[in-house]
Amino acid sequence: MKPEELNLEKTLSSQLIYEGRAVKLRIDTIKIPSGQETTREIVEHSDCVAIVAVDADDNVLLVKQFRQAVGKVLLEIPAGGIEPGEDPVATVSRELREETGYLPRKVARCGGFYPIPGYGTEYLHLYLATDLTPSPLIAEDTESIELVRVPISQIPRLISSASICDAKSIAGLLIFLEYHKPR
Amino acid sequence: MKPEELNLEKTLSSQLIYEGRAVKLRIDTIKIPSGQETTREIVEHSDCVAIVAVDADDNVLLVKQFRQAVGKVLLEIPAGGIEPGEDPVATVSRELREETGYLPRKVARCGGFYPIPGYGTEYLHLYLATDLTPSPLIAEDTESIELVRVPISQIPRLISSASICDAKSIAGLLIFLEYHKPR
Repeated sequence: MKPEELNLEKTLSSQLIYEGRAVKLRIDTIKIPSGQETTREIVEHSDCVAIVAVDADDNVLLVKQFRQAVGKVLLEIPAGGIEPGEDPVATVSRELREETGYLPRKVARCGGFYPIPGYGTEYLHLYLATDLTPSPLIAEDTESIELVRVPISQIPRLISSASICDAKSIAGLLIFLEYHKPR
Repeated sequence: MKPEELNLEKTLSSQLIYEGRAVKLRIDTIKIPSGQETTREIVEHSDCVAIVAVDADDNVLLVKQFRQAVGKVLLEIPAGGIEPGEDPVATVSRELREETGYLPRKVARCGGFYPIPGYGTEYLHLYLATDLTPSPLIAEDTESIELVRVPISQIPRLISSASICDAKSIAGLLIFLEYHKPR
């Protein structure tokens, strides 16, 4: 198939199946390049920010929380949904204050990614947050999140040992180590 | 909150909202540590494999395809769902043959990750596939996938330029570069 034909999928119709608090589910009927009709089940979710936050002692701020969807406590980089109309940089400050108690005075964009492009709309904007100052913000669910400080030097081992095992944290931290770590 | 209290969320009930071809949606009612009841919307999806496939000339095999959920053609590492009862290593061979036309004679596990632990059950098993031999397998949708060979040395630039912008590909390729690349 020639590259220019790759995006010749055409949406014929779209049906909203469920509208929840955090996710919507819709089914699109599409025509694929062969002319055949098929469907795609698509999970709509707000775009999010994910944050590599580094303190003055070269520790990365991670958060530990129970994740009902996978039935486990996971160690992750802080992240959260962008509210309607909210600037992603404001989301970074709000989420970091809520989840770690720190306000970043420097926030730099460092890429982003789709976590489930095969069946979900979500895009995660990745940010590096530094120059941290204490400034807690209480929010729903804040209380069940535990802050864990980890020296940058230990991050590769935490990934290889699967102590960090979610895609946004692995991608975010390895992007930081590969492209943004202060030399 | 003390670490041992982190996983004290208790599932009170679970309601199946929708059962589709690729995803199910359910709503769990849970009791959080404070004693409050709340709900979690959870997308169930089969576990998958994601494959860093490297040929004898140190090219990584990537695939280009239109992704209806994000409305774009994306450049990704090959990946696909594990069929019920299928060994993940068999999934690697099947998916690589379907998406790239190559059968790997060496397959090595190199970790894995949850793409959306906040609202989805999916786990992606990451594999390194080498010693590739031509052995195409035709499957549904195979025709709309384009194979792209990229020298390993170009991968970091493709990630930093956002030409590769999905989480499994970034995490998978950076894990490969950080831990598994032949020196």
